[in-house]
Amino acid sequence: MKQDLRKQPIGIFDSGVGGLTVYRALREALPHEDFIYLGDTARLPYGTKSKETVERYTINAARLLQKQEIKFLVVACNTASAYALDALQNALPDLSYCGVLAAGAEASVKTTRNGKIAVLATEGTVRSGTYINFIKKLRADADVQMQACQMLVALAEEGWCDGVEAETIISRYLNELEPGFDTILLGCTHFPILIPTFRKLCSPDVNIVDSASVTALTVRDLLVARNLKNPQETPGTETFLATDLPERFARVGKHFLGCDIADRVHLTSLITSPFDFEDEDFLLGSVA
Amino acid sequence: MKQDLRKQPIGIFDSGVGGLTVYRALREALPHEDFIYLGDTARLPYGTKSKETVERYTINAARLLQKQEIKFLVVACNTASAYALDALQNALPDLSYCGVLAAGAEASVKTTRNGKIAVLATEGTVRSGTYINFIKKLRADADVQMQACQMLVALAEEGWCDGVEAETIISRYLNELEPGFDTILLGCTHFPILIPTFRKLCSPDVNIVDSASVTALTVRDLLVARNLKNPQETPGTETFLATDLPERFARVGKHFLGCDIADRVHLTSLITSPFDFEDEDFLLGSVA
Repeated sequence: MKQDLRKQPIGIFDSGVGGLTVYRALREALPHEDFIYLGDTARLPYGTKSKETVERYTINAARLLQKQEIKFLVVACNTASAYALDALQNALPDLSYCGVLAAGAEASVKTTRNGKIAVLATEGTVRSGTYINFIKKLRADADVQMQACQMLVALAEEGWCDGVEAETIISRYLNELEPGFDTILLGCTHFPILIPTFRKLCSPDVNIVDSASVTALTVRDLLVARNLKNPQETPGTETFLATDLPERFARVGKHFLGCDIADRVHLTSLITSPFDFEDEDFLLGSVA
Repeated sequence: MKQDLRKQPIGIFDSGVGGLTVYRALREALPHEDFIYLGDTARLPYGTKSKETVERYTINAARLLQKQEIKFLVVACNTASAYALDALQNALPDLSYCGVLAAGAEASVKTTRNGKIAVLATEGTVRSGTYINFIKKLRADADVQMQACQMLVALAEEGWCDGVEAETIISRYLNELEPGFDTILLGCTHFPILIPTFRKLCSPDVNIVDSASVTALTVRDLLVARNLKNPQETPGTETFLATDLPERFARVGKHFLGCDIADRVHLTSLITSPFDFEDEDFLLGSVA
């Protein structure tokens, strides 16, 4: 008998805990789905790493989740969404997935009045230029500036979401922006937990959007359109996998998820693909 | 003809650029040695990761450097020194190496008058308890407190070494310490570049020590004692290897090294050991 695809879980992948902001929105939008969340805490953060490295890590993670028979993958990490979706498509052509950049770009274009958008993101997401491409596709005359805000990742991970430290750091990044924008797009899943402090420091005319809630609605619509929505009427299950330190994942994740998941995080491992061996041979040869 | 071991290079390993503070001191203490520095920038930081993961990464790195025929390995990362030296000894019994904790502990014990020492380090180094063990061995009545300062890593990486952001963050960590200590031991190789700001915020009675310069002197003495010092009288060579983004390594590394190394950083790769494959099979089985 053929398996009912609709009853398979949805996979969510992030470099660590930041993607829990996306997961939280997904669970609200799709309460009857089963979810498997994978955080690659052994190799986080992705935001300071290269396209090639992020591609490799993302394919590793997608393969692991595919073995769990997920019906759909949400790439909840902005850096992975910016860098690795083409590589994912090539490596795993049968996998249905979406990233978080398209929805974030759409939200910012819908929100802006004057077309001036400031995107705050990791170094990698900024370097990729992907947000600018997405936004320009939707509104060709948009005036988009990107700002790498690496310290905000550390701030969110430390749980220092408000207070003088958060205000000082966020102010510095805001001061580095060209004035005139009316919309800030938070282009990293770590940043939404800093919104109250952003709100305090920004003019009331400035809108702050992020991709978590819009991505969740996009995923819901996609599942309905493809007849993949789980027909069960009971609440779905949730499983959290971390590639390192499940306790730390639970502790930091609490800030992002707003509830305690201490007993539900399991340790897992991501293999490195065989071409790493070839790499090493090659590079050892060239270095010696 | 037997190879002259003395002419082999010294390997230095760190999770990223922080260990360049140790390398800088080594180069000053041992100007005629050839050095190969390896920064595992594809998997940094180590400070938030588990003992098992840091052990695996450290052995990977040591194996790569051993293939470069190093005569001695300096584990310049505090977290790796705290967690992984026993595993390194077991995995590579023929390798001569030293970490940075013993020298740092010794420096703090020599410096303190009242025996009260505050160690600032990464989460992993704090969790390991290794600094406390080292210090207590040297002075049993020492009163040691440890403080995890994860934000200082991000601050140093961002190059925000002074100014209001650095002051605000360092003040918060200093305020979390029990007063009474007369010595601060900077137990992470990223932290020494923040010393001017620490100096500004601490009472003049408080001494600030780090392990970089003492480790360099320890290595010099070890090489002399074992007749491993390079007899050449010309300046030694230096090679920098990074497992990801050599340009970023050079850019951030400049803050730590005080000079430009943009044309001397090469990309390399660290393999994951075969037991990761077993891990994955095991864990996929247990999760499904």
